[in-house]
Amino acid sequence: MSLDPALAAVRAGVRRDLATAGAPATVVVACSGGADSLALLAATVFVCSRSRDALGSRVVGAVVDHGLQDGSGEHTARVVEQMAALGADETLSARVRVEGGGQGVEAAAREARYAVLGQVAESYAAGAVLLGHTLDDQAETVLLGLARGSGGRSVAGMRRAFGVFRRPLLDVTREETEAACRAEGVAWWEDPHNSDPRFTRSRLRERVLPVLAEELNPRVRHNLARTADLLRADAEALDELADQAYARAARGAGQDTVVDLAALDGSPAAVRTRVLRLAALAAGAVDAELFAVHVDALARLAVAPGGSQVQLPGHVTARRTPGAATVTFGPTGPARAV
Amino acid sequence: MSLDPALAAVRAGVRRDLATAGAPATVVVACSGGADSLALLAATVFVCSRSRDALGSRVVGAVVDHGLQDGSGEHTARVVEQMAALGADETLSARVRVEGGGQGVEAAAREARYAVLGQVAESYAAGAVLLGHTLDDQAETVLLGLARGSGGRSVAGMRRAFGVFRRPLLDVTREETEAACRAEGVAWWEDPHNSDPRFTRSRLRERVLPVLAEELNPRVRHNLARTADLLRADAEALDELADQAYARAARGAGQDTVVDLAALDGSPAAVRTRVLRLAALAAGAVDAELFAVHVDALARLAVAPGGSQVQLPGHVTARRTPGAATVTFGPTGPARAV
Repeated sequence: MSLDPALAAVRAGVRRDLATAGAPATVVVACSGGADSLALLAATVFVCSRSRDALGSRVVGAVVDHGLQDGSGEHTARVVEQMAALGADETLSARVRVEGGGQGVEAAAREARYAVLGQVAESYAAGAVLLGHTLDDQAETVLLGLARGSGGRSVAGMRRAFGVFRRPLLDVTREETEAACRAEGVAWWEDPHNSDPRFTRSRLRERVLPVLAEELNPRVRHNLARTADLLRADAEALDELADQAYARAARGAGQDTVVDLAALDGSPAAVRTRVLRLAALAAGAVDAELFAVHVDALARLAVAPGGSQVQLPGHVTARRTPGAATVTFGPTGPARAV
Repeated sequence: MSLDPALAAVRAGVRRDLATAGAPATVVVACSGGADSLALLAATVFVCSRSRDALGSRVVGAVVDHGLQDGSGEHTARVVEQMAALGADETLSARVRVEGGGQGVEAAAREARYAVLGQVAESYAAGAVLLGHTLDDQAETVLLGLARGSGGRSVAGMRRAFGVFRRPLLDVTREETEAACRAEGVAWWEDPHNSDPRFTRSRLRERVLPVLAEELNPRVRHNLARTADLLRADAEALDELADQAYARAARGAGQDTVVDLAALDGSPAAVRTRVLRLAALAAGAVDAELFAVHVDALARLAVAPGGSQVQLPGHVTARRTPGAATVTFGPTGPARAV
């Protein structure tokens, strides 16, 4: 019997990723009970302990109960059973408390989930926590970033790895994870949130992407994910160059940060702008509130020999004295002579 | 009477752009008869000869007849009259022959149009040819690029200026150009192609963008255009850095181009990949056929000390001898020892 191609794709993603991660002795798989994470867990068990050239890693299945939906306790218990049945060496569930706060319940749940999974990784001394994000999730993330207009960073989508977290399925579609589950007789859970039109991501999935695929290109999801890979490489390169330029051009620290514009003379505009942004953050400007309008104003300050000033969120002001070749960051306060 | 805000926005775009261009003595405005280019022409006449601080430039209105639609001759004559009535110092029409060829009629018409407008600029010794592309056109270009998946360059949209061509209305919406026309009593032409669902761009405009605006963000067009600006700055920075790295790392020329990988050691991956792409083009690889799959294979070659080779379109092969710290480009031919 030939291997189901979707199953092969999921396993290949996991094998490639764990090889990149140096075949850690213990691997945590974050599992929601959806098709993506169940397919991920089954493939990880296969790659780690059942295939001919098994890595020999111990597989820990972890499910996080956010306590946000009715019956989440029963659901969590069912996922634990399923993970054990799929061959996880150990299973665990963790209950987190999601505080709504200002950032919305989705973001708060995500933050709580990553925090507890990080703790799980530490307590098991795991070398990797695998997340089940698929090519579809990546395409959706790119479109959400575009619609927000927050620039290169958000259009670049999700990273393949950050810290102990890894995403082995970014080249695998959601349908493929479902086909892989079917091929192994795994029944998955459909999260009702995924089709709830109150969530932007659900509307994106159910109403926006089908239109893009029909009107523009049937492979639009693949192409969005591909673009994210390219833009991520670009963004990483520019961040690296900005860090180097910052080391040359910036002095002082905290609220006395000074950027020497002459030291940035050879750098392209995209690098100069990033250096000024780094300086603003070093001086205490608030990252989450530093919008395009602020960064644009900083960029203009750097080419305004006549002098000027820019107020930034976090009570930080960037100042340039007429004729000076420096931008000085300091507390926003009673007017100073500039 | 206060100035119509849309009219003010169009004029501000033209004034800013012509200042950046150094207030050329002669300005050509490319005019299709649509709201965008008529608003552009009227604003250019205002900024150049009617406002209090007029630049004094001579304005030449130019309409290109592609001969693709019935009655295009009459339409062209009407646009010439309209341009004169709006105050252009000179007007002209040029008929071009569009060869369908392999690239589609839209691309062929664009190429023919730019060629003839370049000739017009030369014969009038014009310092600028203004094009009426709006924020909407920019947003559409970004989405088309994304759907194609051709990476950073296409997502970065249209440039504000290239050669003698300039786009002063990239921050102005299509509705604003229509409102500006209405404010001045200018009747514009609706190109039937713009709502013809056989054209991808029409479907994008009429079926895709409204869905994005409704489901994701009413300001999605602005945000797409904003993202294009940021990504364009990033792409330009990386191209600049790649040109510098190419000068250090590449030797030979044409089919004997050699890239010294050791000279690229300090460069980030996004720069290394661009250098290999430049070398492939120098060796004769065909730009339009050099796809992601080829560039990815080149990038892998650079990190494969075991040696390998990659065949590129245009009968060029990139080769790395085992253990060598160079990638050598040469003609694809009978197998060589690698």
